[in-house]
Amino acid sequence: MSHDLLPAAAAYRWPVRVYYQDTDAGLVVFHSTYLDFMERARIEWLRHAGFTMQGLAADPGILFVVRSLKIDYLRPGRLDDALEVTAEVAEMGRSRMAVSQFVMRGDEVLVHAVINLVCVDLQSFKPVGVPEAIRSQLQPNG
Amino acid sequence: MSHDLLPAAAAYRWPVRVYYQDTDAGLVVFHSTYLDFMERARIEWLRHAGFTMQGLAADPGILFVVRSLKIDYLRPGRLDDALEVTAEVAEMGRSRMAVSQFVMRGDEVLVHAVINLVCVDLQSFKPVGVPEAIRSQLQPNG
Amino acid sequence: MSHDLLPAAAAYRWPVRVYYQDTDAGLVVFHSTYLDFMERARIEWLRHAGFTMQGLAADPGILFVVRSLKIDYLRPGRLDDALEVTAEVAEMGRSRMAVSQFVMRGDEVLVHAVINLVCVDLQSFKPVGVPEAIRSQLQPNG
Amino acid sequence: MSHDLLPAAAAYRWPVRVYYQDTDAGLVVFHSTYLDFMERARIEWLRHAGFTMQGLAADPGILFVVRSLKIDYLRPGRLDDALEVTAEVAEMGRSRMAVSQFVMRGDEVLVHAVINLVCVDLQSFKPVGVPEAIRSQLQPNG
Repeated sequence: MSHDLLPAAAAYRWPVRVYYQDTDAGLVVFHSTYLDFMERARIEWLRHAGFTMQGLAADPGILFVVRSLKIDYLRPGRLDDALEVTAEVAEMGRSRMAVSQFVMRGDEVLVHAVINLVCVDLQSFKPVGVPEAIRSQLQPNG
Repeated sequence: MSHDLLPAAAAYRWPVRVYYQDTDAGLVVFHSTYLDFMERARIEWLRHAGFTMQGLAADPGILFVVRSLKIDYLRPGRLDDALEVTAEVAEMGRSRMAVSQFVMRGDEVLVHAVINLVCVDLQSFKPVGVPEAIRSQLQPNG
Repeated sequence: MSHDLLPAAAAYRWPVRVYYQDTDAGLVVFHSTYLDFMERARIEWLRHAGFTMQGLAADPGILFVVRSLKIDYLRPGRLDDALEVTAEVAEMGRSRMAVSQFVMRGDEVLVHAVINLVCVDLQSFKPVGVPEAIRSQLQPNG
Repeated sequence: MSHDLLPAAAAYRWPVRVYYQDTDAGLVVFHSTYLDFMERARIEWLRHAGFTMQGLAADPGILFVVRSLKIDYLRPGRLDDALEVTAEVAEMGRSRMAVSQFVMRGDEVLVHAVINLVCVDLQSFKPVGVPEAIRSQLQPNG
């Protein structure tokens, strides 16, 4: 993948613990579960910046949808692991936002993904511009 | 539980295969996953009787919600198991319906549950009578 | 259900936030997801008392499995809700432990369940006594 | 993505129905759920070719793990949709196999992914060669 190997120092971080529900009979975290961990971290990152899903749906009537993603599984997570899931803007377009997310166990990178989101109108599902308030809150500093 | 130990011969049956996604690090099917298996069987049972979720939501504007349930885990399911999930009416009220469901592996009962559903209005979430068409289709004979 | 309508003041409490992954097209939390929320709270409760799943598996080689449960859905949880999931011993047997768990949104009870666990040997899956260390940590006083 | 826009005529196809458990409060199939649909189709494809997960674990003691993937979400799936999930070899290496998978609703492509699997030893988790029997069964013809 063309992204940095580690999260930025300023990346948002959200703790996630691994329970039985997250593992499979291979004794590791099931591969699609990491996307659930990442959704939690993205929503908490938005909340930390002042935005909730219900709030954005009510005003200005938008929703972020996943348009595409790529994900690299480097090391397996296991039961009881205390993980941290990061989120940071990799690229900001008019209606698109690429978010780089790592799943870390201490200093080890377990998983890295780039999630491409599109900001859409809640009714029409058509792309609309990312609200300026969100853009200015999440944008990496100049 | 006060229910029969086996499904009725006439009970609806739906096949479910166990994949990694259904198992946990204890090498067995995760306990909440059986409720997902049972939802699949209940919806297929309704479909078999001529009703879809989107259809019922459009006309007469209803939804079945789970009001309570009890579930007994007798034997563990494992990766690759070919299971059958049954569904049959245990009790039919005006707006309520108790569904008895078994998860079988051949002749073995793995899990048994009684799921208490309420038929509600899609807008108000208030209980409404189970439509006569559904009642007559699902009701156990005489 | 025969249990108190509210958690004990001393019950363990674990926060859970509702994300898209937890909801369904009925706009509420999917019914089996509450069991996942409850597993998280039970494991954190054990961790708080000094026990991890990997630790218990290594020494004394035990695992808690869900033998049966009943659950009452009183009010729906919704996207962005900040919930608290409680855990407390309802009944302690030699190898069995009934755990009473509530899902609260502020003072409102959304869901209540009694989860019947059995302590089993990791190899044989046969019931064994709940370790005294766990019993004394989790047991309600007096 | 650099892959064809449609599955090959000879691609393996597995039916998947959309239930409440698969949807979210955005009224569409949750994005990580498609990976679960794809795991089901991959395992059924292997089963169709004569291989089970338990069988491969027992002899020759291997497991396929997901090393990386990319996925494109083109159109949303909805409650009650009857989908087909395809699987075909995109690239076959010594221990690696790239699988191209589509989620189709009739002739419409909803989702396309390329899943990069590695064949590993069950004990060491080290890469080992894909067994010749699997290679010859799954390989696209000449």
